[in-house]
Amino acid sequence: MDNFTFYSPTYFVFGKDTEEKTGECVKRFGGTKVLIHYGGGSVKRSGLLDRVEKSLSDAGIPYVMLGGVKPNPRSSLVYEGIDLCKKEQVDFVLAVGGGSTIDSSKAIAAGVVYDGDFWDFYMGKRIEKALPVGTVLTIAAAGSEGSPDSVITKEEGMFKRGASGDAIRPKFSILNPALTQTLPPYQTAAGITDIMAHLYERYLTNTKDVEVTDRLIEALLLTMRHEAPRVIADPDNYEARANIMWAGMMAHNNSCGVGRSQDWNSHDIEHELSALYDCAHGAGLAVTMPAVFKYVMKHDVMRFAKAAVRIWGCEMDFDHPEVTALEGINAFQAFLVSIGMPKNFAELGAKEEDIPKLVDVLCNGNGRKGTLNGFATLDEKDCTEIYRLML
Amino acid sequence: MDNFTFYSPTYFVFGKDTEEKTGECVKRFGGTKVLIHYGGGSVKRSGLLDRVEKSLSDAGIPYVMLGGVKPNPRSSLVYEGIDLCKKEQVDFVLAVGGGSTIDSSKAIAAGVVYDGDFWDFYMGKRIEKALPVGTVLTIAAAGSEGSPDSVITKEEGMFKRGASGDAIRPKFSILNPALTQTLPPYQTAAGITDIMAHLYERYLTNTKDVEVTDRLIEALLLTMRHEAPRVIADPDNYEARANIMWAGMMAHNNSCGVGRSQDWNSHDIEHELSALYDCAHGAGLAVTMPAVFKYVMKHDVMRFAKAAVRIWGCEMDFDHPEVTALEGINAFQAFLVSIGMPKNFAELGAKEEDIPKLVDVLCNGNGRKGTLNGFATLDEKDCTEIYRLML
Repeated sequence: MDNFTFYSPTYFVFGKDTEEKTGECVKRFGGTKVLIHYGGGSVKRSGLLDRVEKSLSDAGIPYVMLGGVKPNPRSSLVYEGIDLCKKEQVDFVLAVGGGSTIDSSKAIAAGVVYDGDFWDFYMGKRIEKALPVGTVLTIAAAGSEGSPDSVITKEEGMFKRGASGDAIRPKFSILNPALTQTLPPYQTAAGITDIMAHLYERYLTNTKDVEVTDRLIEALLLTMRHEAPRVIADPDNYEARANIMWAGMMAHNNSCGVGRSQDWNSHDIEHELSALYDCAHGAGLAVTMPAVFKYVMKHDVMRFAKAAVRIWGCEMDFDHPEVTALEGINAFQAFLVSIGMPKNFAELGAKEEDIPKLVDVLCNGNGRKGTLNGFATLDEKDCTEIYRLML
Repeated sequence: MDNFTFYSPTYFVFGKDTEEKTGECVKRFGGTKVLIHYGGGSVKRSGLLDRVEKSLSDAGIPYVMLGGVKPNPRSSLVYEGIDLCKKEQVDFVLAVGGGSTIDSSKAIAAGVVYDGDFWDFYMGKRIEKALPVGTVLTIAAAGSEGSPDSVITKEEGMFKRGASGDAIRPKFSILNPALTQTLPPYQTAAGITDIMAHLYERYLTNTKDVEVTDRLIEALLLTMRHEAPRVIADPDNYEARANIMWAGMMAHNNSCGVGRSQDWNSHDIEHELSALYDCAHGAGLAVTMPAVFKYVMKHDVMRFAKAAVRIWGCEMDFDHPEVTALEGINAFQAFLVSIGMPKNFAELGAKEEDIPKLVDVLCNGNGRKGTLNGFATLDEKDCTEIYRLML
């Protein structure tokens, strides 16, 4: 096991009607004037925004509002949020929504207290200071409710980049599984896929003898395998929603990813797809992961065999572990298709002729120098082959 | 799943040589004068105390020292520590040791800033305020390095009682698995048993549909099953020690115990044994748990069958699940015996003729009114039968 530090100081409030505690939570963490940041109409239509506003008002906390966050959140709205916070002397940013809204809120929170351009953080500068952020989560997916990460897309060139820092970890996150019951099935499934990707990216490690984190990751993947079909069959299944929501947080606060190398190549390869085609991140991952896994499994067949046996219930073929490894990948892809996820470029709306462009931006943009580094090192030729496996 | 809150803000520094970061960590959390609290000679002999002192000195942080913590830590030393901290104007308590030292440190930290008798907290008063506490952990066992709990024994009557509060959660905990390599095998095994007890106590729930936390608990128990024999066979196995150490923290910071009822009857029944005979808590648990489980398994046979199949690899007997359930308990006991733990009263040094006294204190002392409440409700007759199962 590698040396590591682990720090997850977010206060989680989980369960039915917990959005009523928003005001109390903002007070607990010292907020006196709040920016409520949100996306589109669903949080309005569902009445969630009203309930959050009421909770703040009941606690005597004034607020201003900024909606309009889109999936793959854009830098332009971040700039708008920063200006609004400065003008209104906001000292707490509250995200009401999913990963995109939380990521946009984190970017605003960091930008408000920074003299330069907030995009510096997304070009590699560590975030050391930010306004406190809280979240009321509406989809189990990105894990941003318990992570120090944020991903923003810059409109010029549609560059999708990440930033990180303990300062943008949410001070509190309110997780009410019932809020996710009204999600369209496709979004639910995309969220499930994203959670599973966070787990697989951590599972694909080159560190040996990390049984405890292997087992924890497997536990969460087994949970997703068990609960996902239930929630797709019955969107109102609160218990299944609750299990998925806690798994989603645990999948990404790194408690099960410490002390080991991690992959993240699937995420990087997918990011180019959602940046170019504006597809759902989870849907892109559903197409990307099986292709990546099939391509890199030769790098460590036994690791994929382990996943096949422990997560997907495959019988171990001790004479031909590569057969078991591939069975596990196929079982994972069949599972993703069964919950409604796309399985290839066509279903995703991606185009074969874009592959050279995708590969070029992937391998040479974002400050990279021709390769992706992770579980396996991938160059332009490798990435081309991986995109072709998705056709 | 039940509604819950989860808060685990401890900063964990994990790995080889991490005790060298002690000074840096104390500074990070605002300490300017430290009480180093520790137990017996082992931390001196190993040179650990010297390295911790050097780290503080290098960071320019003055300190005073108080050793002498015993297993089942006593109130008299807590009073002494409180007086010393007040006299020396200490503002940070650093535990260098195991669960007993950490629990004693937490009690001191709470007592220093409280006008009344610190024992009030152990009679049920919630701890709201305390000096910050940090830990340098020397044994994987109690999980106190990541928990808001402390257990202290009052000499008069040897009452063993617990107190709790977020204020006594360690600000940081330094976990260097190599420090545990010099432990005697019996202590290592007792620690392993304690960790497994923290998991079983959470596993024995009456809450339905908590797959995510069931799976996480199973993951940690599977890890212990895998790693414990390795570390008993080879005390210098760093990787096995590391897996056990992280599992021990995760087992008790409640990340895998949220949203469900928990048991803790085994702990309560054992506490009377270690209070009366001063045996190792883990050793007492090794004798207690199988007896309790056999007695209460009728309360929910399928839960014990699940543990048998998923943790102990038993074949499910679908016609007779109670057979599988019992096989799992027997497998657990055989495992504990295989790592050197006692299996009955005699091996523990406990006496049959003390059972009435044990039951009386257990069921009527500690503010209880004749019953223990948890997974199953147990009265004096039940507890008598359970102790008799340990003969």
